[in-house]
Amino acid sequence: MSEQMQRITLASRPDGAPEAGNFRLETGPAPTPGDGEVLMRVHYMSLDPYMRGRMDDVKSYAAPVPIGGTMEAGTVGEVIASNSPAFKPGDFAFGMGGWATHACLRAKELRKLDPAHGPITAALGVLGMPGFTGWYGLTKLGRPKAGETLVVAAATGPVGSMAGQVAKAAGLRAVGIAGGAEKCALAVEKFGFDACIDHRAYDTASDLRKAVAAACPDGIDIYYENVGGKVFEAVLPLMNTFSRIPVCGMIAGYNLGALGGVETSGPDRMPMLWRSILVKQMSVTGFIISNHYDLYPAFLAEIGPKVASGEIAYLEDIAQGLETAPATFISMLNGGNRGKQVVKLI
Amino acid sequence: MSEQMQRITLASRPDGAPEAGNFRLETGPAPTPGDGEVLMRVHYMSLDPYMRGRMDDVKSYAAPVPIGGTMEAGTVGEVIASNSPAFKPGDFAFGMGGWATHACLRAKELRKLDPAHGPITAALGVLGMPGFTGWYGLTKLGRPKAGETLVVAAATGPVGSMAGQVAKAAGLRAVGIAGGAEKCALAVEKFGFDACIDHRAYDTASDLRKAVAAACPDGIDIYYENVGGKVFEAVLPLMNTFSRIPVCGMIAGYNLGALGGVETSGPDRMPMLWRSILVKQMSVTGFIISNHYDLYPAFLAEIGPKVASGEIAYLEDIAQGLETAPATFISMLNGGNRGKQVVKLI
Repeated sequence: MSEQMQRITLASRPDGAPEAGNFRLETGPAPTPGDGEVLMRVHYMSLDPYMRGRMDDVKSYAAPVPIGGTMEAGTVGEVIASNSPAFKPGDFAFGMGGWATHACLRAKELRKLDPAHGPITAALGVLGMPGFTGWYGLTKLGRPKAGETLVVAAATGPVGSMAGQVAKAAGLRAVGIAGGAEKCALAVEKFGFDACIDHRAYDTASDLRKAVAAACPDGIDIYYENVGGKVFEAVLPLMNTFSRIPVCGMIAGYNLGALGGVETSGPDRMPMLWRSILVKQMSVTGFIISNHYDLYPAFLAEIGPKVASGEIAYLEDIAQGLETAPATFISMLNGGNRGKQVVKLI
Repeated sequence: MSEQMQRITLASRPDGAPEAGNFRLETGPAPTPGDGEVLMRVHYMSLDPYMRGRMDDVKSYAAPVPIGGTMEAGTVGEVIASNSPAFKPGDFAFGMGGWATHACLRAKELRKLDPAHGPITAALGVLGMPGFTGWYGLTKLGRPKAGETLVVAAATGPVGSMAGQVAKAAGLRAVGIAGGAEKCALAVEKFGFDACIDHRAYDTASDLRKAVAAACPDGIDIYYENVGGKVFEAVLPLMNTFSRIPVCGMIAGYNLGALGGVETSGPDRMPMLWRSILVKQMSVTGFIISNHYDLYPAFLAEIGPKVASGEIAYLEDIAQGLETAPATFISMLNGGNRGKQVVKLI
């Protein structure tokens, strides 16, 4: 006998922005863990922009979710059945459980959590993949030096707020870009950015550029790129010689159907970027954080205590109930979240 | 009393491809060296693609040549008068003398050459800026590993042929791209490329890509970018995960007027490049070789003996007479040269 579980599957692939109809809520029996497996009752699941990419059937760094498959997500929860000596019922753990109330995973795919060390949701955000992404991109690819200037887009998100706070601690000027006056105030007041520019207040990249330039009197040494689009276009001409651009994602571009299969970028289409890379001797490096988990222990050792002490602030936006996940996800892609978006399932 | 000198000045700025009328041959007295200065009778001057950039009045990594100013160039020649203890008449040296029969330079701006060590023209090509550029970009930014595949555009030029030969010596597969069957044969037979693709034989980037793909069965780990345009568009989809693109120039782009002042690259214009950087975790780094001369002694120590022994091959295309420089330069920008283009002035 097994308990009932709910999951959200990919009903159809989106054409542009995802809609509610692309998702389907399904109910069925929870699986029974096989040899070496563990059944987790999920308490919180993570919503992240990368999931948009998994909805398209295009070649990328990870396989797409199949039609009818459960949407992918990082999850934290309590072990309720275990066929592995590594876990016992009552243990808490992180794993890639998906958009579902229960997750059956191999024990070696789980990381044990100690709820005494702080909220388990931290494993989805500030001390999880997004926080690690912000830290890795800034410190390893951004190569920050005291006195330099960092610009971060999506400054109040879990990636950008980590990058900004780590930069401030390293003696940089940190300028955020965010959508709306409320987020900009949050960036400055909660996360300690020196300034934050509201990109929605400027219709054109050119106008946005003037505002960013005013906030960056010494130019930009690191642009932490996870947005693309108008913001990138505004920032590029302000980059200093020898500046660095770590590229970890492009929220603005994720809904461009063109992103999947465009093959038409001719020589006239990218001269500005290409010329900037050459003339400014910039270093632009893409990274997929899942390839760098050898550094995750170093990240935890450095940032974990700072989160515990409050030196590193974080913010979570918690939606309630699995059934709200599609609408919450769609809203998040349009900037509707405040901080790390999670969904509480219990 | 002073002897007569000839020089070629920038008469007007080109609109697109340079024309003969953009240059003017002028004659006047050679200058007399001041304190700490040296007068050189130029034997050979260098012609390089970067000079095209100096003809435009746009912000770049170096100031443009002013209208009426002497065109810039690296030169080698004999000291005929010296007001510095560091040089005496009869010494040979390299310096940035410009498109002129004589050059008056500060002694500290000159590097002494020993004609007994080989042809002095080598200081303009294989052991000069272009060879150093090929070596630096490949070894420091390309980070080659045995078994990987390098693709180099302009494979028979002094930059590309150095990159290809250094790569072969390091155990890589080296595939060149060049314009015309003759250059392709040269790349394979003289410079040891494993294969060379004639980009003129393919009308579209897509067709060119198929030919490059066939020559690179394991994909491309390093694309040494000094061309841009159709070749770049053909190569980009073939890049491997964690591949590297050192960017040292863009011959194909140099004549695009757009390159100077384009401000219109919107978010729809560069998604393919941007997506590739992210998904393939590529590292794209621009460099201006003049900022890296701290490594020039290391380059000379490594490559000098290999040039002397013949292990590193090089090819020079020598035009005769200062008055031929404009036509030779224009032809070179269209691929008319075979190897390093120099002009003999004496």
